[in-house]
Amino acid sequence: MIYLDNSATTRPYQEVLATYQEVASKIWGNPSSLHQLGTQASRLLAASRRQIAELLGKKEEEIFFTSGGTEGDNWVLKGVAFEKAQFGKHIIVSDIEHPAIKEAALWLKKQGFELDLAPVDKQGFIDLVALADLIRPDTILVSVMAVNNELGSIQPIQAISDLLADKPTISFHVDAVQAVSKIPTQTYLTDRVDFASFSSHKFHGLRGLGFVYIKSGKKITPLLHGGGQEVGKRATTENLAAIAATAKALRISLEKMEDFRHKTSQMKSVLQEGLAAYPDVTIFSGQDQFAPHILTFGLKGVRGEVLVHAFENYEIYISTTSACSSKAGKPAGTLIAMGVPAKLATTAVRISLDLENDMSQIEQFLTTFKIIYQQTKKVR
Amino acid sequence: MIYLDNSATTRPYQEVLATYQEVASKIWGNPSSLHQLGTQASRLLAASRRQIAELLGKKEEEIFFTSGGTEGDNWVLKGVAFEKAQFGKHIIVSDIEHPAIKEAALWLKKQGFELDLAPVDKQGFIDLVALADLIRPDTILVSVMAVNNELGSIQPIQAISDLLADKPTISFHVDAVQAVSKIPTQTYLTDRVDFASFSSHKFHGLRGLGFVYIKSGKKITPLLHGGGQEVGKRATTENLAAIAATAKALRISLEKMEDFRHKTSQMKSVLQEGLAAYPDVTIFSGQDQFAPHILTFGLKGVRGEVLVHAFENYEIYISTTSACSSKAGKPAGTLIAMGVPAKLATTAVRISLDLENDMSQIEQFLTTFKIIYQQTKKVR
Ligand SMILES: Cc1ncc(COP(=O)(O)O)c(C=O)c1O
Ligand SMILES: Cc1ncc(COP(=O)(O)O)c(C=O)c1O
Repeated sequence: MIYLDNSATTRPYQEVLATYQEVASKIWGNPSSLHQLGTQASRLLAASRRQIAELLGKKEEEIFFTSGGTEGDNWVLKGVAFEKAQFGKHIIVSDIEHPAIKEAALWLKKQGFELDLAPVDKQGFIDLVALADLIRPDTILVSVMAVNNELGSIQPIQAISDLLADKPTISFHVDAVQAVSKIPTQTYLTDRVDFASFSSHKFHGLRGLGFVYIKSGKKITPLLHGGGQEVGKRATTENLAAIAATAKALRISLEKMEDFRHKTSQMKSVLQEGLAAYPDVTIFSGQDQFAPHILTFGLKGVRGEVLVHAFENYEIYISTTSACSSKAGKPAGTLIAMGVPAKLATTAVRISLDLENDMSQIEQFLTTFKIIYQQTKKVR
Repeated sequence: MIYLDNSATTRPYQEVLATYQEVASKIWGNPSSLHQLGTQASRLLAASRRQIAELLGKKEEEIFFTSGGTEGDNWVLKGVAFEKAQFGKHIIVSDIEHPAIKEAALWLKKQGFELDLAPVDKQGFIDLVALADLIRPDTILVSVMAVNNELGSIQPIQAISDLLADKPTISFHVDAVQAVSKIPTQTYLTDRVDFASFSSHKFHGLRGLGFVYIKSGKKITPLLHGGGQEVGKRATTENLAAIAATAKALRISLEKMEDFRHKTSQMKSVLQEGLAAYPDVTIFSGQDQFAPHILTFGLKGVRGEVLVHAFENYEIYISTTSACSSKAGKPAGTLIAMGVPAKLATTAVRISLDLENDMSQIEQFLTTFKIIYQQTKKVR
């Protein structure tokens, strides 16, 4: 099997699963309990939080655990909107956000907030001039993702930070789900970023766990009200085993980041070159300012799903541009926002690489593509 | 160690941890992915959902996974409120709900909904006449828990179902977190119940996983918008390993329910008798119409925390009445709602039993209590 769908989810590291198992079987007390089992659990909780904060260069009291990227995104969007509604009701999110942001924003619109979608250019980068134009005195929130999940384009978070430097009343949120341990932390976690969301299963951690960075002093209304956990910001009995496992996954994947960047970009280059040789192939992802491990392309006249299934026959697993939209059969929202014609956009498939892949797999991918290219000749 | 704090959290079954490990390491594909890894994952997801539904006598399309009891409670409260706001804005929750309900309801009140707290009697049961009186033409939701977590009182869900029988526009939610596998399913999952929330870690499952029963045809606004999972009702990449493990935990604990009920009520009787012999002890939990495994009592003049720590010295773990409120040092909300004077309420501690406890532990508890009773004589 050749797994080239690492942006959909990653295989949990063995060490991470071992930590989960260890904690879930041995330190299973409720951190809120007053007795020793609770104290032991709450110490490990604090240590995990501290480790994650340190790994990201932030303070431990700025890290809040969630059930994943989607909850983090929904929490920040809705939590900031409700928190600041009295000061303004205008929200800006980029036109290529993940549905966790876009759908949350559209829901807020139904609740009486005003929403603008910041457009992107033909390469998949937010248009900074257009973004600046959208900002109003009543803008309370700007949300832009760090790495786009369908294309791999790295959004100019530093430039947006500069743009927002003299606008302290605007909260700035970054969806860092596809960025962490793939691109250097400081490129998307700038000092101007107020909120950032993360998801464990995208960096060889576990499903159902994520965290949100909330800059000290920034207010947010809870999405999960209740028992006062996470300093009253996010209730529920803490998923300690997954939290400790996530801290480990983050440490390991950040340790491996340079190696990851080096090896995946080499593999991506070979793929890019190999695919570009075919006249009926359109490559959507670029190299500069793109994540090193994501390559999105299309084969003229062949729908993305068809290509995914063709590769599946060879036990090569790729994706239409996002796992979420794949079952709905929708064309890639990012490509549409870039102005790619709908027909071409429906051909898009995404390869997302990892350190667990190697060059021989890339060669096998290309050999297989050659066969599929021949087989699909008649439909093109 | 003697763990008598099973209402705070339970030790995950070994089989449950094994399932988690197996699935997380072998079936780690994203259920939304179109390729085989996704298909394999989505099949297991469907099978787990089906199993949970069958165990509860419901349809598989009526089960929706969440990150726990708190998310389920928040989702139903807020999701029903926002969904039905155009038809009415009045909500009723009992005065002894868990903070996940109460705080969510109070937040809705701030958003312009009207909230009534249905009172309870001196024994800790909702006052049905008072509840009936609170119902208005614009009431959209009634939420009452099945088993109270601080006291163990079983709320009259069937009687409330009868009361609401001719009021189909009112959604009826039951927080079943402390009830499932402790009292017979049909007593709280009546045909009239529209929504019910569950949490895995309370029945030897895993932290960070829960589910909500939503009766077919009942509408609810998502709390987590995004990628279309759970038929568009609750987004995020599914925590498949924990879901499969939860299905197993539910099966095992329901299989053991009769045994659980029998053995814990025997232990509870012995405790009750043993404690009642002390003149300075107040027993708050009753027997009839109370969960078989929860016993809440207080020792005159001794704050709950003090008693918890006194037992902790003997490696006996009990709780102030709820894990959530324990760190905040708040007196038990349920007892206050019952009209117990604040001073007496602050003495309350909760013993919550499980099949993993046995009579020798109960004897040890009582022996230890005798010592502590003597030691604390001077402060009383
Ligand atoms: C950019 C982005 N944001 C958010 C999410 C949602 O994360 P999760 O699956 O943990 O809810 C994903 C992945 O699904 C993503 O790629
Ligand atoms: C009655 C009740 N509802 C909800 C919850 C919240 O469940 P969870 O810890 O899974 O969020 C609890 C326990 O903490 C509870 O006892």
